[in-house]
Order: sequence, then structure tokens, then C-alpha cells
Amino acid sequence: MSLISVREATSIILNHSQDFGDEMVELTKSLNRILKEPIDADRDFPPFNRVSMDGIAICKASFDKGLRSFYIENIQAAGSEQLSLKNIENCIEAMTGAILPKNTDAVIPYEQITIENGVATIHLDDVKYLNNIHPQGFDQKKGTLLIDKNTLIGSAEMGVLATVGKSTVLVVKQPKIAIISTGNELVNVDENPKPHQIRKSNVYSVLALLNNLNLNASIFHINDDKNVLLKEINQILMDFDVLIFSGGVSKGKFDYLPEVLTDLGVEKHFHRVQQKPGKPFWFGAKESKTIFAFPGNPVAAFLNFIKYFKPWYLKSMELNFENQSRAVLEEDFIFKADLTYFLQVKITNKKGILYAKPITGNGSADLVNLIDADGFLELSSEQTEFKKGSILPYLSYR
Amino acid sequence: MSLISVREATSIILNHSQDFGDEMVELTKSLNRILKEPIDADRDFPPFNRVSMDGIAICKASFDKGLRSFYIENIQAAGSEQLSLKNIENCIEAMTGAILPKNTDAVIPYEQITIENGVATIHLDDVKYLNNIHPQGFDQKKGTLLIDKNTLIGSAEMGVLATVGKSTVLVVKQPKIAIISTGNELVNVDENPKPHQIRKSNVYSVLALLNNLNLNASIFHINDDKNVLLKEINQILMDFDVLIFSGGVSKGKFDYLPEVLTDLGVEKHFHRVQQKPGKPFWFGAKESKTIFAFPGNPVAAFLNFIKYFKPWYLKSMELNFENQSRAVLEEDFIFKADLTYFLQVKITNKKGILYAKPITGNGSADLVNLIDADGFLELSSEQTEFKKGSILPYLSYR
Repeated sequence: MSLISVREATSIILNHSQDFGDEMVELTKSLNRILKEPIDADRDFPPFNRVSMDGIAICKASFDKGLRSFYIENIQAAGSEQLSLKNIENCIEAMTGAILPKNTDAVIPYEQITIENGVATIHLDDVKYLNNIHPQGFDQKKGTLLIDKNTLIGSAEMGVLATVGKSTVLVVKQPKIAIISTGNELVNVDENPKPHQIRKSNVYSVLALLNNLNLNASIFHINDDKNVLLKEINQILMDFDVLIFSGGVSKGKFDYLPEVLTDLGVEKHFHRVQQKPGKPFWFGAKESKTIFAFPGNPVAAFLNFIKYFKPWYLKSMELNFENQSRAVLEEDFIFKADLTYFLQVKITNKKGILYAKPITGNGSADLVNLIDADGFLELSSEQTEFKKGSILPYLSYR
Repeated sequence: MSLISVREATSIILNHSQDFGDEMVELTKSLNRILKEPIDADRDFPPFNRVSMDGIAICKASFDKGLRSFYIENIQAAGSEQLSLKNIENCIEAMTGAILPKNTDAVIPYEQITIENGVATIHLDDVKYLNNIHPQGFDQKKGTLLIDKNTLIGSAEMGVLATVGKSTVLVVKQPKIAIISTGNELVNVDENPKPHQIRKSNVYSVLALLNNLNLNASIFHINDDKNVLLKEINQILMDFDVLIFSGGVSKGKFDYLPEVLTDLGVEKHFHRVQQKPGKPFWFGAKESKTIFAFPGNPVAAFLNFIKYFKPWYLKSMELNFENQSRAVLEEDFIFKADLTYFLQVKITNKKGILYAKPITGNGSADLVNLIDADGFLELSSEQTEFKKGSILPYLSYR
């Protein structure tokens, strides 16, 4: 059975992105969701000529005529209705954030005046028009597009959504995801494993990777029994949009998963990719359901999630892809097999350059190694020697 | 009143880190929390000689004597108790993840054998000792430190915690945080502002920034009334560990905050920092309570959170600091005032190098600008011209 390349696998996966629809959520629940509506300025920003320093507001013409001392008529506080300067040879104290009083066109900050007996004296030789005034519409005109559709809502976007009054926001609906481990050797985290058993760990790593994409999931475990697999996966296929398996896709006698999925009408898009770790990866779909079946080895499942699930999910979200990250290999590295190799690396930012130091571990079963690393460099199958200084694609999980 | 430098402000803040204590949480709730116990290997990893390819397990001595065909005695499945090869001239089929059968010391994968009438024939000229076997303790010996105390629990750490059976984990307790906006010009997000009013936005940006540090907060608003401020802040000081204010710290007539905080017995550590934006920042403490009072301008509050609150929080968590990020300035930039300038920049990774392109906005009130940028470059107050190609400290909020 021939393997497909990493490039082909990626292309097939991206061609099978899913549409999850959209939903309204409260503003404070919208962080790290994907915006599904364009956000326009509902007013000019600032919405009024805004005082930007604490001081006095004057009519510049009076200053230009030589006037330096101004009787203080009133105080314009932030949040108060606009006052009007009655006599243009007077002034109004004006606070940061306040609307500029009528008949004034410059603000002189407290640092440049003295006030005595209700009269402010300006210690300046000239004053600019609109001095310390943030003019209406200067930042954004009403109706301007502020945030595009299909944008990840981060902390900056939250502030803008609040400003324009979006107390509820249209975002992409989150898929219902099931993480399913198989393998009779696995016991629960709170159990004491027998000598030939180990505790489940992949489901927790994958759940954490999903959580970091702001997704949740339900966790299942099914033993290596074909009939039980058929029955339980059939039910999970009905209840969930995305199924992520770990284990059961290698060549073992009890690796029933590809067969069971086919029996359940899941169309196989590919099985086995020319890469290390993560070669036995199986990918398929049934109607609107997508199935990622990763190998059971911890590093393999982890890498496959980052390399395949994550871009598939971002594509499904219609989120515009970022430039792919790259990093500079810090030591020579040799990998001889005709496979794309995903090398675990620790990243250091030195003078603005991302350096990647190989963390040579004990193969795809040693998940402790992932703790010392930050991500994977992708080493092409078309090359065997990778020289120090090579610039290579970098997948981060930190 | 003299300003203090950014360096002094940072140093004072880091000297006032807080101890929040620790607590036990369930494993699945521990993601992005700070681990407060060292995690050791509870067993060898792998805990047994583990079969790492699907195939047959043989006794290498029999192969070395010239034997190539082996009668299949049994199947060793993953998760089954260890079998024993009865006749060392026979073999046992063995599956990935299984314990290696007794009396065998090499595994030959299905790809390199043929099976006919219950007899497996090996198509190889030699077989290595421990071929396709992942020996007990090869990755980690029982008792080895796997994860250090004071580590951020990410997806890699989750897998290891599960493997060693940590169904509950000791982590740093999360502080109770209040975000308090002041300013009479502010109305709620779902309100229709009058011409001289604007909607609250800083509390939402700050809440989002906290959420992205895996922290939550309660939101308050207090109008610019000294008695109301005194009464409400007094209560908040009793109920919360950390208070983050936005607004009320400039030189305006109604900027009562510094005065009110002093009246409530909060010790001022500094007020006003030699920087732009974010100059009027006020920082203080009362017993075990820490108070960050940021200016009301959106970009100023945002920047001050990233520059001051975040490192203070990480220090309080006793999380080891990462290398400070740096990026390469992509265009000449001039800033003349004797202040540290925080320049909004968009980052691009080109060939492993982080390039920072200035996003020149409309000053500290234009929060829309934050959407186009990814972070801030820190431009020292001791310099006015920053040349294209300069390597400068970079603070990211993406």
C-alpha cells in the first residue's frame, strides 16, 4: 500500500473543510471565537471634538489678539453636556475626555498656565488651532469597516466590539468534537496500571490542544473489540461533528479501526502518510462528519493534531491563514529515511531571529520530550542532510 | 512632580509580586495553570519492554542458528498479560504497545515476513538484538523528575500528568481580580450614548487580556464622585486581591483616584511614568492587595497591562521568565520626546526573522489601531532616531 506525501495529505484535508454555521454569543463569551459579521463604526471616532488634556479651553482668536489672561467661566467635565463659552475673551476649564465647549478651539494644559483668583494666565507665545483637541471623526468616520468578517476575536477586537455597542456578536458555531482512544492496554488516570498496562494520556493532550483553540470535546474509550467498536462509533458518528481517534490504525491484528469505519460508511480519503512520526494517520468523512484517526503513539498523535487538525479547523472557520512560521536550525541534522521528518525543537529568540535547537528524544512514544520542546521543524523527505542555519517551516504548540 | 523611568517602574512592580497560595484542581481543569509540585516518573517509561511494531516476536539465537521459518504459537496483544514462548524455535505474533513475550528478544514487522499455514518466514539476512523493542526505562527511569515545579501546564504537560496518574494537580490559586472603570462619560455597551458620551471598552479589553492569561475578573464602574469612589473602592479592596482601574489618574479636576486610594490607606509606590502612551499610571498596594490604576485612554490601558500587569502576574506565579522577545524594526522611526515610546507594530516572520512594521495611528485613544497591530516595540527614551534594522524589545498581545 503506497503512502501519500505530507503535501498531498495536507491538500486533501484542506479540501474537506467543514461549515459549522454561526451563532450569536454575548460579548464577554466571544473572546477567541471567529467573527462572522463585518463591524462598522456606528459613529465617528471620536464621536465629538474631544478634549485630550486637562486644562482650559479658549478661543484661539482671542489669544492671537494678544490676550493671555482668561476669566474662568465654567468647567466642562467628561460626560457632561456641551457647554458654551459665553464671552470669547473668557475660558472654560476642560477635562480629558470631555466634549469641547462651543466657541472654543484650543486647549491649554494645566502645565502651561497658572490660575489665580479664578483667572487663568497662559505662559506660551503661540497656540495652535485645535491644540490638544482630538477632532470628531479623526480616527474613524462613521460607517468605516473596523473589523473584517472571519477575524479571530482577540483582546484588541473586544475593545472595539464594546465601543460600537456589540453586546452580542455573530461568531462561528463550535463543532461537537469526540476524542476516542482505543487500545486494551490503556487504563484511566486514576487507576493503578498492571505491569502490561499504561494510563491514557493522548486524550488529555488532544483535549488540551483543542482547549487552546477554544474548543471543547467529549472523551471516550473503546476496547479493541470489533463489534463494540462498530456499535459505539456508530452512535458517536450520530452525536458529533468531528471524531478524533488515537490508536487502532496500524497493521496490528486488533487494529480494527479502518475496517470498522469503512463498515460504518465512512469514506476513506487516505491512510498512511510518508512521514515520521505519525505515519499510520487515517483520514475520512461521512456526510458532514469528519474523522481524524491518529496513531496511538503520543508524539505522533500530538504532531498530527498540530500539522493536520489545526489547519483544517482554521480553514473550516474561514480564518485567513497567517504566514507560515519559519525558524533557523541551530545544529546540523541528518535524517536518512525517505519520509518527511518532524523534528522536535526548542525555540529561542536571539536578536529577533528564531533559532531552533533539536531536542533529540527517544522516538514517537516519549511524550516527556514534548515538555522540553516548543514545536516541530518540518524536514522535507527530499533531503537527508539539514545544515546548521537552514531556514525551515516551524509548527509551534506553545 | 518628577516622572520615574520605565525601568524603575518595572523594578518596583516586580518587587511587589504577591503570593496567592495554591490549590488542588482536577487534571482537565489544570490547563494553563501553574504547576506547584514537581512531577516524577511513577514507573519506568516504558514500564515494560514494549513492542513497537506489529509483527512476530522471536528468540534471536534461533534466527542466528539459521532458522528462518517459525511456527506461530500464540498472539501477544496490547493490554494482555505477558505470554511466554514455549519453544524458542517458534514465535509469537506481537502487537504494537504489547509487553514483549518472555523468551523473545526481537520483533520482525509484518512487512518483512510472510505467513502461510500458521508459519511465519522471515525475509532478512540479520536481525538486531531488541529489534523493534522499546526497552523498559529507555525513555525515563522511575523517580526521574519529569516536570519542574513552577511550570505553565500546556498540552504537552497534560499528557505527562495523565501518564503518571495525576488526576488532581497542585497549582497556584488564582487571584480575585476587579476591573474598575471610572469616568462619567462612559455608558454601557448596550446603551445608546448621548453626543458627549462613549461606551465602556477598556474593561472588556482588560478582561480579555486577563482571560488570555487564564484569569477571570469582576467588572465595576464608578462615577467621578469622591464619596461614592471612597465607599465602593473600600468594599472592593475587602473583596478582591488585585484592583485594575482605568481612568481617573490624570490631572483633571475630577481625577479623584490617587487621593481616594491614599485616603483608603493604599500606599502609593509611584505615579506617572516617563513613557508614551500610559504616562499617568499609578501603582500601589495595601497589605496583600495590589492596585494598578491605568489611564483611561484605550491604547494606554492596553499597553500598561501588557508591560506591567503581565510580568507582575508571572512573577507572582513564580513562573520562570522567558527570554524577552525582540524584533527587527522595518522602517526608520523618529520619536523626539524624552519618554520611552511604545510603538504599535505588525509582525511578520520572514525566513525565521521577526520584522516589525510600525502601525502609525492616531494616538493613545484610537483602539482600532490595535486591531492592525500585533504588539509594541519599546523605544528607549535615551534615543530619538531608530534606524531600520534596529533590534528592539517586543511585547506581543497576539
